[in-house]
Amino acid sequence: MTNPAPVPLSDRARTLLDGPVYACFATIGKDGAPHLSTMWVTRDGETVLISTLASRQKAFNLRRDPRVSVMLIDPEQPYRYAEIRGTATMFEQGGRELIDRLSNEYTGHDYPVEPDDAVRVVVSITPTRITEWG
Amino acid sequence: MTNPAPVPLSDRARTLLDGPVYACFATIGKDGAPHLSTMWVTRDGETVLISTLASRQKAFNLRRDPRVSVMLIDPEQPYRYAEIRGTATMFEQGGRELIDRLSNEYTGHDYPVEPDDAVRVVVSITPTRITEWG
Repeated sequence: MTNPAPVPLSDRARTLLDGPVYACFATIGKDGAPHLSTMWVTRDGETVLISTLASRQKAFNLRRDPRVSVMLIDPEQPYRYAEIRGTATMFEQGGRELIDRLSNEYTGHDYPVEPDDAVRVVVSITPTRITEWG
Repeated sequence: MTNPAPVPLSDRARTLLDGPVYACFATIGKDGAPHLSTMWVTRDGETVLISTLASRQKAFNLRRDPRVSVMLIDPEQPYRYAEIRGTATMFEQGGRELIDRLSNEYTGHDYPVEPDDAVRVVVSITPTRITEWG
């Protein structure tokens, strides 16, 4: 499988990613059907960042098929949205730092301490297609 | 392909479907990757209803693979959400009535008149799995 070429984020996508907007995150299950979660989301430059645990269903899905989609709806104007399709990689390095960064952005404080066996991972998404509406 | 058995909606899913909550709607593209749209949504009993045009990408996707997922986030409490996975059928009968019903629920008035060649369809989703969070 050849991954599609990266594309730059749009201005709207950047603005929504930089605010505390809840994202709808789609992965593909083992059976090929779509799975959705509601997630905190941010970015480093042109890379979209989501935090999860290595034990979650979405992490299993991403190891099998890295193709994802992220929907961002402007909470002030729900007719305006941006869909970011992309390819995800996952890694442990910086996992705790990312969940604290997201938690501070969305709740104003660090994320709670997690059990020792909870493996926090970074989901790093390279955008390959941006669709906007409204 | 055998479709999974229908399941009843949860109380939370019913409440969110009955309010003017914007849904994140996932279909599967030709390449097997997830596609997302933001949609108006309602229900008839245990059936989830979405309106689209026969010419839209999501309609092409549904003809190929009827497996969908619908994410509903409580706008007052974004940590509370319900994901409804299901199987979709599409038909033209009642298409205009549904878009007017949805438009009145979300905007307070009928939907604009559409061109003669716009084929409005009902996307009727039988839930097969409900996941809640928060």
